[in-house]
Amino acid sequence: MRMTFAKRIDSLRASDIREILKITQRAEVISFAGGLPAPELFPVAEMKEISRLLMEESGRVALQYSTTEGYEPLRQKIAARIGCKFHTQASAEEVMITSGSQQALDFTGKLFLDTGDVVLCESPTYLAAISAFRAYQPEFIAVPTDDDGMIIEELGRILATTGNVKLVYVIPDFQNPTGRTWSLDRRRRFIETVSRYGVAVLEDNPYGELRFEGEILPSIKSMDYEGLVIGTGTFSKTFCPGMRIGWLVAAPPVIEKYVLIKQGADLCTSMRNQMEIDLFMDRFDFEGNLVRLTELYRQRRNAMVAALETMMPAGVSFTRPQGGLFLWVTLPERIKAIELLKRCLEQNVAFVPGDSFFPNGGVENTLRLNYSNMPEDRIREGVARLAAAIRSMDS
Amino acid sequence: MRMTFAKRIDSLRASDIREILKITQRAEVISFAGGLPAPELFPVAEMKEISRLLMEESGRVALQYSTTEGYEPLRQKIAARIGCKFHTQASAEEVMITSGSQQALDFTGKLFLDTGDVVLCESPTYLAAISAFRAYQPEFIAVPTDDDGMIIEELGRILATTGNVKLVYVIPDFQNPTGRTWSLDRRRRFIETVSRYGVAVLEDNPYGELRFEGEILPSIKSMDYEGLVIGTGTFSKTFCPGMRIGWLVAAPPVIEKYVLIKQGADLCTSMRNQMEIDLFMDRFDFEGNLVRLTELYRQRRNAMVAALETMMPAGVSFTRPQGGLFLWVTLPERIKAIELLKRCLEQNVAFVPGDSFFPNGGVENTLRLNYSNMPEDRIREGVARLAAAIRSMDS
Repeated sequence: MRMTFAKRIDSLRASDIREILKITQRAEVISFAGGLPAPELFPVAEMKEISRLLMEESGRVALQYSTTEGYEPLRQKIAARIGCKFHTQASAEEVMITSGSQQALDFTGKLFLDTGDVVLCESPTYLAAISAFRAYQPEFIAVPTDDDGMIIEELGRILATTGNVKLVYVIPDFQNPTGRTWSLDRRRRFIETVSRYGVAVLEDNPYGELRFEGEILPSIKSMDYEGLVIGTGTFSKTFCPGMRIGWLVAAPPVIEKYVLIKQGADLCTSMRNQMEIDLFMDRFDFEGNLVRLTELYRQRRNAMVAALETMMPAGVSFTRPQGGLFLWVTLPERIKAIELLKRCLEQNVAFVPGDSFFPNGGVENTLRLNYSNMPEDRIREGVARLAAAIRSMDS
Repeated sequence: MRMTFAKRIDSLRASDIREILKITQRAEVISFAGGLPAPELFPVAEMKEISRLLMEESGRVALQYSTTEGYEPLRQKIAARIGCKFHTQASAEEVMITSGSQQALDFTGKLFLDTGDVVLCESPTYLAAISAFRAYQPEFIAVPTDDDGMIIEELGRILATTGNVKLVYVIPDFQNPTGRTWSLDRRRRFIETVSRYGVAVLEDNPYGELRFEGEILPSIKSMDYEGLVIGTGTFSKTFCPGMRIGWLVAAPPVIEKYVLIKQGADLCTSMRNQMEIDLFMDRFDFEGNLVRLTELYRQRRNAMVAALETMMPAGVSFTRPQGGLFLWVTLPERIKAIELLKRCLEQNVAFVPGDSFFPNGGVENTLRLNYSNMPEDRIREGVARLAAAIRSMDS
């Protein structure tokens, strides 16, 4: 090939999850690898009705181009929901619709990152955020993290000694990949610390509404008095991914910049899909659907945690998430997750090795398990095979 | 605001079209400013039926995440259509679905452009392509262009004397903004010339299927034996924009790179929207709908050209497009289009001044007129007011 690609292309590589998913599409595989919602609870019958209603009531508007910012009534509903659920104060003007929240990650990279700028993130962090930001050629520093969130002393030390930190990326609720949730105290100290340095923060919250137990905690954005925190969310986990509707929430001058970026990137998000979610919320029971989904995931989390507690050999630890789709397993240091995956695939069990979730790599004994997309008996069977495979690694 | 944006943000500014469209949303304005398809021919009743069928037949698959490349049967249909219509030889594996073809422009900037690289384009060119590429901080060279396309001698001279040309962007069929179509001879000499230099080409063809008269010409991609040409197209103009479905077509190693870019940018395009277009093509008369649409635009083109011929004062020239949505007016040099626009807006007529379509500006006496979204009597009335405003500029 004679054409010459941009330098950034050298750093893009196929995601491990993607390659694994290709293997695991066979029906006999028990896959803990993806991050798919449970399709059995997609509101298929209701969507049929909503599509009909929308075409009858506003077909021509729905099928035309829309404004770049998005459909005003949906922006209002999102502003109201995040206010009510996470104490995030925002008006509709502070919300921009995105084509899924992955687009919000890409746009945030575009908005803040010049080559060589530094992004801080949790250690580990969401791997597709790493991919999104990597296109803008930053350096990553993974901030040490414990069960309560980022370790603030470490964050402060890095901010004090690193000149060009442009963005801090965090997922405080039921984090992907660990399932961990930041404590209230940690959130407060985090915003205090970043405010001292005036660094932009992207708070990603795709899973926050899927809480199995305990109190919802206020978003970090709700504690921000400097306009430093940008929020993003999505309907992919609370409704269905096929709509590709997410959002960004930020101060008006920041939203203005995002709108310019979106104009160049895809003009607008499907008006029809936006209007359908809006109409669904008006005519059907969005909250009831969310309650059913959360209950299903709670049962699956229970099944996976119980199976892990019963079956895992000594030296294996794992998180017990209070919500979301994932939990995180730490193996004894001598066991490499990628080697374990090879043995598991022979037994038709799949997961994602943890290494991909560390932007600078180097952690080989961890793995991510997804429990949202498998029935309980398959979860138990899969964990049993996983435990046997771990035991076999010592022999 | 204490946060620091990336350098690229300095060069992004609100599109003139966008700002004008805000003014022109009042019903009394005769707007030739936008580029909207005629909503009266959107297949609203059929889409209602398609949505129902899809939810009944494959609701859970349609509402789930899809692969990044897109829905295989739709990729096959696109490959077959562009082969049949434009002689573009491609397999489904060489087609990637995008969220509208604007996304294809953004991804192409991301794939090829480092800061300071050079993009060649027609003079004038599509303004949202300029916005998309500008995010990657290239320099633009607008290649002189006449009624038959780029002037090949000029293209050759620029390629011979400019070291870092990474991409040539062209719209050979019913170009936005001019409505002009490249001749067969110009296409052949173009591909010969770029092949000598091994530069990547993006051939954008959103309007090619909307031909009013004359023979369809083969795509430049169909003449490319080096794998240098990447094609992009969309269903926004032949079906409806609200679906947000476009595509890229390129050699497999190039599509692989685009897939990596799309994974980081939005994971996938709405599976439901892809499946609906595919199902529409199976169950309804896509071609028949396209014929009706083309006939409507032909009548509107006729109305606009006839009105311009009758009413325009001496010294005003304009293109007579054989298809597409736009024509291009050149005023006497003493008249500035932006001043004319101010007078026209007082008379409730809107258009886009041509200056925005030149990446380096400097051409002030041109304007773009859109005829797809206005009935014939309003077109005649709007042109009459435009002609009167031009006459008034001399007094």
